[in-house]
Amino acid sequence: MATTPDAPAPVPTDASTPAAAAFRVEHDLLGDRDVPADAYYGVHTLRAVENFPITGTPISAYPELVTALACVKQAAALANRDLGLLEPHKADAIVAACEEIRAGKLHDAFVVDVIQGGAGTSTNMNANEVVANRALELLGHARGDYGRLHPLEDVNAGQSTNDVYPTAVKIALDFTAQRLLDAMEVLRAAFAAKAEEFADVLKMGRTQLQDAVPMTLGQEFATYAVMLEEDRKRLAEACALIREINLGGTAIGTGLNAHPEYAALASRHLRALTGLPLTTADDLVEATQDAGAFVQLSGVLKRIAVKLSKTCNDLRLLSCGPRAGFGEINLPPVQAGSSIMPGKVNPVVPEVVNQIAFEVIGNDMAVTMAAEAGQLQLNAFEPLIAHSLLKSLTHLRAGCLTLAERCVTGITANRDHLAHLVAHSIGLVTALNPHIGYEQATAVAQDALGSGRSVQELVLERGLLTEARLREILHPDNIARPHAR
Amino acid sequence: MATTPDAPAPVPTDASTPAAAAFRVEHDLLGDRDVPADAYYGVHTLRAVENFPITGTPISAYPELVTALACVKQAAALANRDLGLLEPHKADAIVAACEEIRAGKLHDAFVVDVIQGGAGTSTNMNANEVVANRALELLGHARGDYGRLHPLEDVNAGQSTNDVYPTAVKIALDFTAQRLLDAMEVLRAAFAAKAEEFADVLKMGRTQLQDAVPMTLGQEFATYAVMLEEDRKRLAEACALIREINLGGTAIGTGLNAHPEYAALASRHLRALTGLPLTTADDLVEATQDAGAFVQLSGVLKRIAVKLSKTCNDLRLLSCGPRAGFGEINLPPVQAGSSIMPGKVNPVVPEVVNQIAFEVIGNDMAVTMAAEAGQLQLNAFEPLIAHSLLKSLTHLRAGCLTLAERCVTGITANRDHLAHLVAHSIGLVTALNPHIGYEQATAVAQDALGSGRSVQELVLERGLLTEARLREILHPDNIARPHAR
Amino acid sequence: MATTPDAPAPVPTDASTPAAAAFRVEHDLLGDRDVPADAYYGVHTLRAVENFPITGTPISAYPELVTALACVKQAAALANRDLGLLEPHKADAIVAACEEIRAGKLHDAFVVDVIQGGAGTSTNMNANEVVANRALELLGHARGDYGRLHPLEDVNAGQSTNDVYPTAVKIALDFTAQRLLDAMEVLRAAFAAKAEEFADVLKMGRTQLQDAVPMTLGQEFATYAVMLEEDRKRLAEACALIREINLGGTAIGTGLNAHPEYAALASRHLRALTGLPLTTADDLVEATQDAGAFVQLSGVLKRIAVKLSKTCNDLRLLSCGPRAGFGEINLPPVQAGSSIMPGKVNPVVPEVVNQIAFEVIGNDMAVTMAAEAGQLQLNAFEPLIAHSLLKSLTHLRAGCLTLAERCVTGITANRDHLAHLVAHSIGLVTALNPHIGYEQATAVAQDALGSGRSVQELVLERGLLTEARLREILHPDNIARPHAR
Amino acid sequence: MATTPDAPAPVPTDASTPAAAAFRVEHDLLGDRDVPADAYYGVHTLRAVENFPITGTPISAYPELVTALACVKQAAALANRDLGLLEPHKADAIVAACEEIRAGKLHDAFVVDVIQGGAGTSTNMNANEVVANRALELLGHARGDYGRLHPLEDVNAGQSTNDVYPTAVKIALDFTAQRLLDAMEVLRAAFAAKAEEFADVLKMGRTQLQDAVPMTLGQEFATYAVMLEEDRKRLAEACALIREINLGGTAIGTGLNAHPEYAALASRHLRALTGLPLTTADDLVEATQDAGAFVQLSGVLKRIAVKLSKTCNDLRLLSCGPRAGFGEINLPPVQAGSSIMPGKVNPVVPEVVNQIAFEVIGNDMAVTMAAEAGQLQLNAFEPLIAHSLLKSLTHLRAGCLTLAERCVTGITANRDHLAHLVAHSIGLVTALNPHIGYEQATAVAQDALGSGRSVQELVLERGLLTEARLREILHPDNIARPHAR
Repeated sequence: MATTPDAPAPVPTDASTPAAAAFRVEHDLLGDRDVPADAYYGVHTLRAVENFPITGTPISAYPELVTALACVKQAAALANRDLGLLEPHKADAIVAACEEIRAGKLHDAFVVDVIQGGAGTSTNMNANEVVANRALELLGHARGDYGRLHPLEDVNAGQSTNDVYPTAVKIALDFTAQRLLDAMEVLRAAFAAKAEEFADVLKMGRTQLQDAVPMTLGQEFATYAVMLEEDRKRLAEACALIREINLGGTAIGTGLNAHPEYAALASRHLRALTGLPLTTADDLVEATQDAGAFVQLSGVLKRIAVKLSKTCNDLRLLSCGPRAGFGEINLPPVQAGSSIMPGKVNPVVPEVVNQIAFEVIGNDMAVTMAAEAGQLQLNAFEPLIAHSLLKSLTHLRAGCLTLAERCVTGITANRDHLAHLVAHSIGLVTALNPHIGYEQATAVAQDALGSGRSVQELVLERGLLTEARLREILHPDNIARPHAR
Repeated sequence: MATTPDAPAPVPTDASTPAAAAFRVEHDLLGDRDVPADAYYGVHTLRAVENFPITGTPISAYPELVTALACVKQAAALANRDLGLLEPHKADAIVAACEEIRAGKLHDAFVVDVIQGGAGTSTNMNANEVVANRALELLGHARGDYGRLHPLEDVNAGQSTNDVYPTAVKIALDFTAQRLLDAMEVLRAAFAAKAEEFADVLKMGRTQLQDAVPMTLGQEFATYAVMLEEDRKRLAEACALIREINLGGTAIGTGLNAHPEYAALASRHLRALTGLPLTTADDLVEATQDAGAFVQLSGVLKRIAVKLSKTCNDLRLLSCGPRAGFGEINLPPVQAGSSIMPGKVNPVVPEVVNQIAFEVIGNDMAVTMAAEAGQLQLNAFEPLIAHSLLKSLTHLRAGCLTLAERCVTGITANRDHLAHLVAHSIGLVTALNPHIGYEQATAVAQDALGSGRSVQELVLERGLLTEARLREILHPDNIARPHAR
Repeated sequence: MATTPDAPAPVPTDASTPAAAAFRVEHDLLGDRDVPADAYYGVHTLRAVENFPITGTPISAYPELVTALACVKQAAALANRDLGLLEPHKADAIVAACEEIRAGKLHDAFVVDVIQGGAGTSTNMNANEVVANRALELLGHARGDYGRLHPLEDVNAGQSTNDVYPTAVKIALDFTAQRLLDAMEVLRAAFAAKAEEFADVLKMGRTQLQDAVPMTLGQEFATYAVMLEEDRKRLAEACALIREINLGGTAIGTGLNAHPEYAALASRHLRALTGLPLTTADDLVEATQDAGAFVQLSGVLKRIAVKLSKTCNDLRLLSCGPRAGFGEINLPPVQAGSSIMPGKVNPVVPEVVNQIAFEVIGNDMAVTMAAEAGQLQLNAFEPLIAHSLLKSLTHLRAGCLTLAERCVTGITANRDHLAHLVAHSIGLVTALNPHIGYEQATAVAQDALGSGRSVQELVLERGLLTEARLREILHPDNIARPHAR
Repeated sequence: MATTPDAPAPVPTDASTPAAAAFRVEHDLLGDRDVPADAYYGVHTLRAVENFPITGTPISAYPELVTALACVKQAAALANRDLGLLEPHKADAIVAACEEIRAGKLHDAFVVDVIQGGAGTSTNMNANEVVANRALELLGHARGDYGRLHPLEDVNAGQSTNDVYPTAVKIALDFTAQRLLDAMEVLRAAFAAKAEEFADVLKMGRTQLQDAVPMTLGQEFATYAVMLEEDRKRLAEACALIREINLGGTAIGTGLNAHPEYAALASRHLRALTGLPLTTADDLVEATQDAGAFVQLSGVLKRIAVKLSKTCNDLRLLSCGPRAGFGEINLPPVQAGSSIMPGKVNPVVPEVVNQIAFEVIGNDMAVTMAAEAGQLQLNAFEPLIAHSLLKSLTHLRAGCLTLAERCVTGITANRDHLAHLVAHSIGLVTALNPHIGYEQATAVAQDALGSGRSVQELVLERGLLTEARLREILHPDNIARPHAR
């Protein structure tokens, strides 16, 4: 259950409640502080929890981010061990702690708020402290015994928040985006299946909400599948861009305090741990401050949202009724629609997806503001960027799956009604345009509109075409695709 | 004719082309420059035109802004004369020049780009120079003879761009907003007239695009009139907030170089000249840097845009067809709808208003970014704020008038079709809810939906109500407003 | 602890785990369903939880919304009892259940997702079911025994989601906004206290990030207090607008199925229960579909965000350093700033407030999209509007308190450094402008810039003013406020 | 000169004023209308000008759009001639008219407003009529003699607005984007030149506006060049996506009334005429309604805007002063900065670019709204999308060139000041971190901050390092890039 968003996040105990000595003392540049004895996190995390009581949602809400942090810490430890900069027993303990986190353990010790000042420092500090304390335990020492293994000097060795955090965020985004790509494929396939099912159902197409010319319902649904496939390609491209990392750049990208071979080594370990084709940016100073790849990803998510919303608008339009609307298709009922109107069923699934889309568009605005606000060698607002993007990715995924499974799969067509609309449509006159001319066709259309009579009837009455020719022109095989006259 | 937006704005000659001595020499802190001899503007304007070749649209595109600048310059000259800080003959000449500008003359000498750096300095300089040169002429001197009357020391005496510019922008916004208020009233009245015309036309209301319960078409149109009336109130309130000015604050609001009585005096003159109930802010330091009133106004314009867009979406929905849509109302045809589909008529007027709404929402975002970017004692980005707001105000006005005159006034109702939809609606069952219960009513609704039969028929068949009672409950007088059972 | 946002919200058990008969059977228009025997919610809620596994955050995350729903249900029951439309024992039980919810109980039974389709129907259904089941218990009946007291026919009597939900949302927003107003006052007072503390500290003002003219640090901080006070007024005005409710309008505002006296009665009870001066809208059809008051409130929250962000940008600028920046003020250190740079302290509290501001601006965009998407007689997207606004209100509140308590209160000034900057400033030349003229002053300024010498020195050297006159002009009492020459 | 934006666009005469017969009569489905005898446009255009008096800016403001329309009309005529569907003499005349337009003639006959309803129909009609009338003239016939060559039946043969307009818009965007790419390269090169010039200038890097660790000014400027190069790549990719066209899809993408070979033929001619590698979409129904490529392009333009704005923020920060700010670099003065503060010079060029960026971000929002509003088989709001994107492209181009030529090229560095800041920086302590440990380094940093003494001095005093070792660690060659300990 989520906490009240405006209540300060309580400092969580991460395990069973402590017994005797409830606290240990830790120290930072502001002085001494009591830390719960059984906490895996330490003084830096504690202060951050107190400083940022904003949303009540801890970073553990994004398990991919916690996992990504563990990957980075592990890769750094391995690189430092390779370079002789970290004693093997320390490195091994750090690696073991990270493995546990990557296996889903200890996540509840990642307690800092998702919206935080400090450019992600508190998230990095939280990771350093949890890894250090778990490593200390594994080495048989007490939590907080940092003389033996230090969160900053050992776990964070050769690192800075400013390279660790963006790298971890990018990995988390990539992990999460892959799950969205999968969900989009589920939705695409659902639309494609409907396109096939409705391939022979002729209907009136509409432009500007006015009756236009005939098409098939299959073509209509195929469009949604094609859109999703295109969007999947764009998302995959945006993911490729976030695989360029700045690990090794340390504080501002100059690599101060990092061994010259560290970046390449750490990156190699990270590729192995994540399975992602990560590359190290050519210009680490640029990569450290640049939020461009986040803006690009957010822009693509907005694109996906825009098109999903348009698709849901269409589904709601096509199914509106049951008697005073288009009534072309039926969405499967999934719940009673009204507390007052008996029997009413509403398009609640498209509606929830519309709202996700609006949220994503809003998130994109937040990302834009945060990205623009970066100054000089760093963007201090990456925590909001990460939060916004992870929200968009996960909510879009939920929306795609819900839409596929609880709506699209169960859509049915009102075939008789659709056929009736085509047969009585004035839009048929367009197909006659090349045969009787735009001006003559206009006259027929206006007559049909005024009199309520059919285009076919009027064309024959005026002797503009023979019945055989008319039938041929309006044959379904000819009317929903290009054909020679 | 508008210029190409990406071409640098050519330095315009403001009168017939010069003959002999085509240039005069002016001087600023960068050195000497040739200024066209017949230009009313001077060296500062010239440099600004060269520095900001951005949109090709000069500030004269907003005549209200030019007029407002003249009001401020005139009020300042009068105040300075009252205080003995400006010689009467200079003051008189400045006043005369300003009167000409307020009468619509010399506007083509306001040539700096609507998007400009410098927090409006170039606009203020442009005004100072045009007023000075015209005043010099009126005094019988040559343009550029600043030893006799100086753009900065005389026309700008006791002023800074940082109090002149925001003050002028606020006056211009208020002038322009009044014209929008008038246009909104035209549109409101058009909707109200239709509400009366359609007061007795029963139709199905819709929620979530699904048939709901009956109402009148008059109620539907009255809603649009009420919305506009509420929005007019909000706009009037936002206008009241922009009437708080900072004239007299000079550079940063401390009033440096302004006489202690200057602010009150200048403000009094400005009220008289503009006819607006302007007040001087209590805290001029705050007023000089605060863009809050602009953000508020922009937010209200966005609100208006959101609701106009919703209204146009509704008009397009209600008129969609002619045969495969709702077909409840007809929008008057104003042009042929298609280059390929003969006889097609589209809702082009609502569509253009939708687009204005989208533009206004985008402009609000630009205003938001610009307002947030203010730093310390000034917001350097007020030119974009002014440009965005003036665009929104003028385009909304055009949209309201166009919508009223070319669309709403000519709307007709398809009364038979509307009556038919009500009579055959399943939504009628809601009215029976208090009489037969939600669960029984649900069963009737589902049966009606499945069988295609009418609610009335099924209720009678099941013996749930007598025919007389049923008729009474569904009587139009009872069904579109609250009534006792 | 918050749940993983992309995991489906698990169906919560609302009490201790059940023993024997774990389920009861409930029924809706889709058929029978097992509901956990100990759940206060029912079948409609269950389906909604399954249909909207979007964010994992239940509506109980907003306790004000749950409380508001209970107020509305209680007021409706009282009105129906007054009108003889609800048996007294039922009304009493409903009232008692609502009182419990208003006292903070049963909130964990409000389990539907904050982002949901259906225009709030699921939220209303959730409230109806929890109230009904608790009332049944209080009457000595089993949960689910709806023959005795029905969620729809009794708890929802005379109501529709479409009047209940917007009314409850507005009350919840008002409750929450009052808490923000309080927090803004805390922050305002903190700035005002600093304004007093720094009233005599002379410093250089800056426009466009360039040295301008002197002011006091007290004036600078007073500005932030004034801005907040103005924003509080705007927020209070926006709150007044959301106190216009549509209760009694039922499905589309026509009041179908509501007694003619119901709206007035229910509203009177609701005023008493909430303590808010609620009014019933004149045109309920309009009020039912109009999202204007939400857009207005969101626009004001955006305004607050824009100015808070600007304020935090300023605090970060003024405190930048410690040695290579402005270094004018010191923000209190609240945590170590870096995992790699020892001793570094960062402006993390302003940074977190910047991010809240960006989030609020993004939320405003989501509200805008959702409001624009309303169609015909209803806006189906109010759940997202409610979620966005409640998030903005609560996060802004957290930001204001954090900024006041962890930053502003502890700010100190570097008085010597500030005095030094004023004494050596070229900007002083502006004060000499009325005495030596703009062109002469420009020459002095350029000389000072080029030579590195002081303005005072150069003015005396050039014999432009006597030393006594110069000292008088530049006296602190004269330079930071208007004065006669 | 641009017209007043809120004045209705006057119907322009496209040549010298007529003498005798001032009007000719044309006819459409609404009846007869007088058209100025010397107008190249016809009745459809005339009605559109009357219907859309919105911005006063005609589509000729975008010459690339007019040119692109001529390319499409020419390609269509050639394809129809190839297929025997258009008589050679008509085709030849149409081609000749289009060639003239492509050569820059007749643009002033493209008079419909840039914001228009009708999905671009009026733009297409305007093109059809101008081409037809000019072709008639070339054939020796009178304008308006459509019996001989018809705007719709001949010029628009086999076409619909719904394939012509998006195709022309995409070509126009591509043409315009190429010019932006060129301008970005100019700006990139300017930054790269400065990066080289400042390659050896050591300075303090800053994170979160606090002094961090040393870097070179060259690295700082190189970052801007790298960002632009990355953005150019993204823009080029977005351009590739808009080269997929739907010509041949006609009204809704089904190709109704188009010859089966028409799409391929027309596309081939269009590639030849434009020089662009255009491809025909696989699914024309999807391509006709999908605005995805526009949203993607807009998103990339927003990305460019975000980063340009960040860059300009940095330039303004680094140059702030002259005495109370960072004062690290000097921007070339391009105009006097103040009407009241003599000698003040402001960063007006970066400021104007900031504003362009904010405008582009606002335009992106308008594009987003317009794209989301598409319904079923068409997006009726493409005119606003086109207007917004063309504005963004041209203004960004102007901004890049202005920034390069009037600002970046003239930037100078205050080398002594920069060196001084590094030498006295506390941030140097970070470089000592690996040698003396994070906790010891923290103590030194705090001592330095409190005492005002230098890090070097304190380290030596405490005996933490030898002087030689200290000098080696802090050597410029080591400190601004990774190195082994």
